[in-house]
Amino acid sequence: MAFSLVPREESFFDLFEKSSTNLLAAARILVETTDHFDRVADNAKRMKQIEHEGDQLMHEIMARLHRTFITPLDREDIHALASAMDDVLDFMEEASERLVSYRVREATAPAKEFAAIIARQTEEIHRILPRLRKVKADDILKHCIEINRLENEADRVLRESVAALFESRGDPLDVMKWREIYDLLERATDKAENVAVVVESIVLKMA
Amino acid sequence: MAFSLVPREESFFDLFEKSSTNLLAAARILVETTDHFDRVADNAKRMKQIEHEGDQLMHEIMARLHRTFITPLDREDIHALASAMDDVLDFMEEASERLVSYRVREATAPAKEFAAIIARQTEEIHRILPRLRKVKADDILKHCIEINRLENEADRVLRESVAALFESRGDPLDVMKWREIYDLLERATDKAENVAVVVESIVLKMA
Amino acid sequence: MAFSLVPREESFFDLFEKSSTNLLAAARILVETTDHFDRVADNAKRMKQIEHEGDQLMHEIMARLHRTFITPLDREDIHALASAMDDVLDFMEEASERLVSYRVREATAPAKEFAAIIARQTEEIHRILPRLRKVKADDILKHCIEINRLENEADRVLRESVAALFESRGDPLDVMKWREIYDLLERATDKAENVAVVVESIVLKMA
Repeated sequence: MAFSLVPREESFFDLFEKSSTNLLAAARILVETTDHFDRVADNAKRMKQIEHEGDQLMHEIMARLHRTFITPLDREDIHALASAMDDVLDFMEEASERLVSYRVREATAPAKEFAAIIARQTEEIHRILPRLRKVKADDILKHCIEINRLENEADRVLRESVAALFESRGDPLDVMKWREIYDLLERATDKAENVAVVVESIVLKMA
Repeated sequence: MAFSLVPREESFFDLFEKSSTNLLAAARILVETTDHFDRVADNAKRMKQIEHEGDQLMHEIMARLHRTFITPLDREDIHALASAMDDVLDFMEEASERLVSYRVREATAPAKEFAAIIARQTEEIHRILPRLRKVKADDILKHCIEINRLENEADRVLRESVAALFESRGDPLDVMKWREIYDLLERATDKAENVAVVVESIVLKMA
Repeated sequence: MAFSLVPREESFFDLFEKSSTNLLAAARILVETTDHFDRVADNAKRMKQIEHEGDQLMHEIMARLHRTFITPLDREDIHALASAMDDVLDFMEEASERLVSYRVREATAPAKEFAAIIARQTEEIHRILPRLRKVKADDILKHCIEINRLENEADRVLRESVAALFESRGDPLDVMKWREIYDLLERATDKAENVAVVVESIVLKMA
């Protein structure tokens, strides 16, 4: 008789881990793009592909949520976690697309800072998610605090970079473009913070 | 003895159908405005009126939700569906108001494309809603997929039209105005996609 | 034997009242800033401090929510109320920070109007919250309607002020700055309306 020894709900964790691996890959492309700007167009295509895979993972999680009677985490937490991770990816992809369609010539210093912050946040997310299988509160919360701290840093980068853009009295159209790109990058870090908020809430409930 | 044969909760469906008729009317005004731009001011007034009616329908749904003990759909789904439909209307109205207050002189090609997409999405919504009374999953999901596809199309129009705006090197103030109007129109299509997402989730639960 | 006569859940109300006192203080600083613009930098620092206190109150409410088994209001309402109040504060703080970092020279007439509207909304919120302890529906709903009316007024101020900005054909970079500041101020009034929406829903459930 064939049957699975692993309860099927376990697979939520598998899907979340695939999502976080996906996130990490996207963040690395973003860093590479800002470091080697000549690859911007190719990297935007790879990013689009990763975002597409992220969408499919998200749909799989949602479909499974509807089919599964007893879930290993609260249904709303599974939904919130999947959405938050998908949002991080969406904003990375949008920023990467704008770099191409706005015909930006080079990555600015703040763009590099944002990419580095997002990469560090996704590394933290990638560390946390496997630990949700067997919650160790202290261990997880430490990483959530770090994600939070990184978001505050991104907030500072946004404020300073936008103030500097206006200060530069450059071409208003270029100011508009970069403002939007910085905004998209900062929103990616906000969404990463959302991931941490959901994880914190899961951990607190289980404590 | 006078009493209603129709259980009172049925009226949620009536209210949703009124909302979708309202949405359809608003989308048609938007199309007419972009086709015959000399009517922009009159049409903005009619749109404002429709948005006002939409608000009242929304309030009626919410008030009824608080009064009704057993609802024909999950409470949160009723709330989400009413909100999503109200959001579509709000963004159409906001875009229509900006065309007047920003003293725009004519409708651009992307504005017409957005209006056409929104009109098609509201037609799909108008087809779906009456079928929620007696859920036929396949039939409904087909329309949800089409609404989704239309949102992807609007996304493409936004990306191309904003890139073209910047490319034109036109007056920065005009670029700002159109960017905002395109953004509002695209957000109307996002919200229409939200309607489809809620409907899909209702259908999956009932399946 | 020492024990508290006040059930511990009562303290949610205490925390909400502290939050609303905090909101009121922030709104008064905003009014003072637009009236006496030479204090803009000092006031932004005070605002930042108040926002920080608001964050701590918010975290305390959330942590207590996780620890408390029986809450005096629905859990989701406590969450929504705390979030909405925190959002009002965040937008006030963001607007106040932009006035400094964008090196704005003086407060415009619309900035003063927004500050006055927000101050009136926070006064209404400050009146409502203590009444949640012992709900008197009519009394509370009257204030919710007023908060709503004020939000409509802010909406009008936004539309008129942004149209006037474009009409002025001024420096595009200055137009961008003020547009963003007006937007942040208007979003503070939106979030104040959210507070009223949550309160209305609490009152309707208890009626």
